[in-house]
Amino acid sequence: MARVVVDAEGGDHGMPVVLDGVCRLSMEDTDIQMILVGDADAITDALETRRHNPARIQVMHSSGAVPMDEDPRSALEARPDCSILVAMKCLATGDADALVSAGHTGATILAASQHLERLPGIRRAALAAVHPTEGRHGPREDPFSLILDVGATLSATAEDLVNFAVMGSAYASVISDNPKPSVALLSNGAEPNKGTPTIKTAHAALNSHPSIHFIGNVEGLDLPRGTADVVVCDGFLGNVVLKMLEGVTEVVTDLAKDAYARKFLWRLGLTMLSQGLRQLRTMTDWKQYGGAPLLGFDGVIIKAHGRSNSRAIRNAIKVAAKAHDRGLSEEIRKGLASAT
Amino acid sequence: MARVVVDAEGGDHGMPVVLDGVCRLSMEDTDIQMILVGDADAITDALETRRHNPARIQVMHSSGAVPMDEDPRSALEARPDCSILVAMKCLATGDADALVSAGHTGATILAASQHLERLPGIRRAALAAVHPTEGRHGPREDPFSLILDVGATLSATAEDLVNFAVMGSAYASVISDNPKPSVALLSNGAEPNKGTPTIKTAHAALNSHPSIHFIGNVEGLDLPRGTADVVVCDGFLGNVVLKMLEGVTEVVTDLAKDAYARKFLWRLGLTMLSQGLRQLRTMTDWKQYGGAPLLGFDGVIIKAHGRSNSRAIRNAIKVAAKAHDRGLSEEIRKGLASAT
Repeated sequence: MARVVVDAEGGDHGMPVVLDGVCRLSMEDTDIQMILVGDADAITDALETRRHNPARIQVMHSSGAVPMDEDPRSALEARPDCSILVAMKCLATGDADALVSAGHTGATILAASQHLERLPGIRRAALAAVHPTEGRHGPREDPFSLILDVGATLSATAEDLVNFAVMGSAYASVISDNPKPSVALLSNGAEPNKGTPTIKTAHAALNSHPSIHFIGNVEGLDLPRGTADVVVCDGFLGNVVLKMLEGVTEVVTDLAKDAYARKFLWRLGLTMLSQGLRQLRTMTDWKQYGGAPLLGFDGVIIKAHGRSNSRAIRNAIKVAAKAHDRGLSEEIRKGLASAT
Repeated sequence: MARVVVDAEGGDHGMPVVLDGVCRLSMEDTDIQMILVGDADAITDALETRRHNPARIQVMHSSGAVPMDEDPRSALEARPDCSILVAMKCLATGDADALVSAGHTGATILAASQHLERLPGIRRAALAAVHPTEGRHGPREDPFSLILDVGATLSATAEDLVNFAVMGSAYASVISDNPKPSVALLSNGAEPNKGTPTIKTAHAALNSHPSIHFIGNVEGLDLPRGTADVVVCDGFLGNVVLKMLEGVTEVVTDLAKDAYARKFLWRLGLTMLSQGLRQLRTMTDWKQYGGAPLLGFDGVIIKAHGRSNSRAIRNAIKVAAKAHDRGLSEEIRKGLASAT
């Protein structure tokens, strides 16, 4: 049984959407216990109007929330009892097994670094994201790959990149039932001698790593193709490419809408193509993936997208519980220890 | 009148395609003079079977060519009289005004650094590429932006990035008739405080640069949108994102083909949508853009894509001549001098 603490104040759509997701999950056939952190009165009021299973939901009071556009450090300093800090402390003391927040990413990372231990050997944390690919991955034939880091560690050393590879591999094996995920370094060419000095050093280390199924460097075009199950890079590069994938989807959709508006025949064509377009949209719909794991800390943390709807919140909580139940932190420890 | 030296041995499709492009352009109404560098006997034989204007084509002998998969340094050392070295020396001595090659990118950059002076104040060269965007740019409403560096300088300092901004801005104004191109830094957030220390330093310098129309940082999703006319980043990041754009186009095309094969109604829909898809394809067709300028040296160098067909070669030569005729190097010098 996993106990998941949920930041009820986080997310672009505010508390109602988070509570919808939590209440929905509480009625389903799982044994997940949820701790809602936020203004207790507001949560209690909101719960009264929603169908839910009270035996599976606990409320923990906090005061204040981090606005999405504030600097993380000053925001947390100004609000010592805000929802993400209270939730993180709950995880740190062992009162919860995992944490989910759709709030400020930077504040979540900072709160984690203030209150949680890093896993042994980990210098820097990594935020991992799933991105849609043409190729299929793992025994369930998932249409997405994992990419990390996407913003927690802007400049990574070779050692950081190797640690990211271990953590990403552990996460893919735990969540996607992929016993030996293929791992690649994102570089400017497939050859081992391509890349910055950092990339070349990481390449050599990964090549001889006992517990990583390292397939070498991949290039930008391998990201949409899905050549590897796990792609490793520093947080600056990962953030740029992840947002670019979002932007491309947006542009394709705009072009299709444009065609839709302009001409009857195109409109007819588009209607008939809808199944194909739906396939494309599903491929690029982050809502179904639940969220991005923040890896490197001794505790499961899932960062849900700020724009999450209730289904995305529900999925994020399920993923957090699964990561705990299957021993994500233990898997990462084993991977890290195998190389020393 | 521009004299353009053309590497006849470069490119994935070999000499015939390069010669087709040169011969075709020689028959058109321009005053461009072309110097073909390669095996003189082979070129002379090939010219005999092609319609061309002999008054506009000169042949210069070289022996050997750099294979696409060889290390640039050892390849050039082993072939002191190979086509790219002979062509580069021709540019260095002033016997030509501009150079075009569809050959090995690394060998072209290395040959340039061995034989040409860098422009005053330039420490590192940059390879710029055009990429398709949804937004339109400049008075001609071009559907593409310039991005640099895409592979000449993997790790760039803040000063390098500022120089790239000056060079990219000069190129956009000369080639796209865009008197004041908007320039942006690629980062992990739009705010000035986002990015690596290098990005932040470059941001501050560009903000007060007298001759750059700097619009701040852009994110990954701004690349397909086309928020800026010129996007500046280091060569490692630029190479990854440029290849990713190619990969995304490939995947969208594959999905469309898949739909095409599977179902009659989709097939019908696709046929009717063909005009929309053609629009998307045109947007992403690098062949029409001519090639990527290698900036930073005292001489115009256009690197055509290895997969160039004859039309792409012809366009690359025209762009090279235009860059010379409009004083690209002088424009860059002025931009560099304005900040000192």
